[in-house]
Amino acid sequence: METQEEKLRGLVAQIGRPFEEAMEETKHRQDYLVKPPGSLGRLEDISAKVAGITGKVKTPIRKFAVAVMCADNGVVEEGIASAPQSVTLAQTINFTRRLTGVGTMAKHFNIPLLVIDVGVAMPIPESLYTENMLDKNGEIPREIVNRRLANGTQNLAKGPAMTREDAVKAILVGIEAAKAIKDSGVDAFGVGEMGIGNTTTSSAVLCALTKIPAEDAVGRGGGLKDEGLKKKISIVREASKKCIEEGYDVLDILAHVGGYDICAMAGAFLGAGIYRMPVVVDGVISIVSALAAKAIAPGITDFMFASHKSKETGYEVAMESLGLYPLFDLRMRLGEGSGCPIAFNILETASSIICEMATFEEGEINDDYMTEIREKNLFT
Amino acid sequence: METQEEKLRGLVAQIGRPFEEAMEETKHRQDYLVKPPGSLGRLEDISAKVAGITGKVKTPIRKFAVAVMCADNGVVEEGIASAPQSVTLAQTINFTRRLTGVGTMAKHFNIPLLVIDVGVAMPIPESLYTENMLDKNGEIPREIVNRRLANGTQNLAKGPAMTREDAVKAILVGIEAAKAIKDSGVDAFGVGEMGIGNTTTSSAVLCALTKIPAEDAVGRGGGLKDEGLKKKISIVREASKKCIEEGYDVLDILAHVGGYDICAMAGAFLGAGIYRMPVVVDGVISIVSALAAKAIAPGITDFMFASHKSKETGYEVAMESLGLYPLFDLRMRLGEGSGCPIAFNILETASSIICEMATFEEGEINDDYMTEIREKNLFT
Repeated sequence: METQEEKLRGLVAQIGRPFEEAMEETKHRQDYLVKPPGSLGRLEDISAKVAGITGKVKTPIRKFAVAVMCADNGVVEEGIASAPQSVTLAQTINFTRRLTGVGTMAKHFNIPLLVIDVGVAMPIPESLYTENMLDKNGEIPREIVNRRLANGTQNLAKGPAMTREDAVKAILVGIEAAKAIKDSGVDAFGVGEMGIGNTTTSSAVLCALTKIPAEDAVGRGGGLKDEGLKKKISIVREASKKCIEEGYDVLDILAHVGGYDICAMAGAFLGAGIYRMPVVVDGVISIVSALAAKAIAPGITDFMFASHKSKETGYEVAMESLGLYPLFDLRMRLGEGSGCPIAFNILETASSIICEMATFEEGEINDDYMTEIREKNLFT
Repeated sequence: METQEEKLRGLVAQIGRPFEEAMEETKHRQDYLVKPPGSLGRLEDISAKVAGITGKVKTPIRKFAVAVMCADNGVVEEGIASAPQSVTLAQTINFTRRLTGVGTMAKHFNIPLLVIDVGVAMPIPESLYTENMLDKNGEIPREIVNRRLANGTQNLAKGPAMTREDAVKAILVGIEAAKAIKDSGVDAFGVGEMGIGNTTTSSAVLCALTKIPAEDAVGRGGGLKDEGLKKKISIVREASKKCIEEGYDVLDILAHVGGYDICAMAGAFLGAGIYRMPVVVDGVISIVSALAAKAIAPGITDFMFASHKSKETGYEVAMESLGLYPLFDLRMRLGEGSGCPIAFNILETASSIICEMATFEEGEINDDYMTEIREKNLFT
């Protein structure tokens, strides 16, 4: 029988290359739109990248969703988090009530949130759970999807956070989420998270993957004081050092120092590649998860768009390793995927240009005044 | 009888200060929303600034418009523009057909464009004109609004571009546009432009206002070659030098080296202050016009939001003089106000948070799990 890891490898093998021809055709078409070539800057780059993902020059991008991976981290018992573990539970529930930051934006802009319990520590009332990633109408459900693998991870300062097999299972949850989002008719999605302690786990994964010093990767998270920060750095240093010394591969790194949320997020990014959808990377934890996905499937960044420039420590090096550029800078540091709605609007704007803007030839430009413009591109 | 300049001074005198109390109350409320204080960064700053404009903590920002000021510049006879003057006419018409860059975005996102002919050189067919800034339903019309003051300006390399009185009249057109936009029920608006040669006029105004060297203000516009660039710099240097030597005030600067488009844009910014609406500054020509408005009414920047970081030469110094920060960086350089739709979305996102996100007290957080969170803000 196929193991979970074999299943994962089979899925990852399905991730294809960008459609080069569609990308070239998109770049070419943009040079003939009624504007100076290149004048829409990164909006033009976005459209070309999207064409590489979908294989179509004109890809309408209008319907969005955010997958929110929720899980707890055993390392909080070291006192390195600024909020108690109960906040993970509370906010997981609050996502479904649209009370959090990204929840409020999602409500306003009518963006579905796929809220998944991958390993919250405290119990969630049965009435708030569903077992299905899509409801009977094929829509993303309003409840919390129950994919809980454990009541939080083990304390990574004392041993592995989880088994390698559980890391793989959490990644598969993320891939399943991407498939559900695709099946619901969404054009592009983002990946957010909730998990007290996950700036510690993401820093440890970042250090283990990139070999940067812990000092450069560890920040104050939700608002840590000096002593806590010192301890957090020390824990991240020890944990990542072990990963590097032992020569762990990315799955072992995730198992030893990661979290269920990070694994599921990495899986969602891989799912974007498997099911060929544009995906938004938003916030430091999302970026580290994207880096883990890249370690599993190097070409996966061809499917990713980074949202905002984060203020969190570790952001710069993580983004550089990922090789993407941020689309905006609003000094946000909330997490949750709260930059996704603005990033979606930028993707939609780019899509509106390539799908709806006329070329000189197509434009209904029939007046005498327009002859000069119609006959040759006078902007060039 | 009141002169046009007296009328302008009377209107400018109506620009009030920000409502400090509403701003403070907004900042205070944001600290009690269900998130770590300050974690939404500039989205929180935007909401506070908007409260200063409207006097309300909760200001819904959902309906937008872009005023597009269209005019020609006599200086193009010097050969400093990369496209012929007929492009101004063609694109002015194309705005109403939603065929330009901002036109396409406006069509997609259902944003009205108030297209105004302030001084296009070539004739516009009567059938495309309207005399009214609002149609009979009180909506922004689909036609081009006829406020043509002349068939383009005079050549600023040979003498004043226009009279001081015409500069004032063009500013008053902009103020009228802001009032019409307010009356149509719009919550926030942007200001765009079309005018071949207007990177020359805007560079000259920038140099005259800030006294920076012409080399630092002049770029290639739509795509100028080396020789043309050299000539453009020389024209801007001579024209701005005269303004500085003669000690011209801002109205004389606009008359001597500006354009009808720049004057009308400056007026639209002043109108944002008079009628108390958030206004988006988008692109170099818009920024220079905003600088001119600031020279007329120093407090006007309290009503402005800068959209993107432009790639045009002169952008950095102009933005620094204005004292604003850009909200995003997509390497755009199309002009037209084409960054406005994305800036609007950012304003709407900020508004959704302050209007709709719950505080800990207000949230329907009644489960036992939530008690800890409800009783004290555990994020702080």
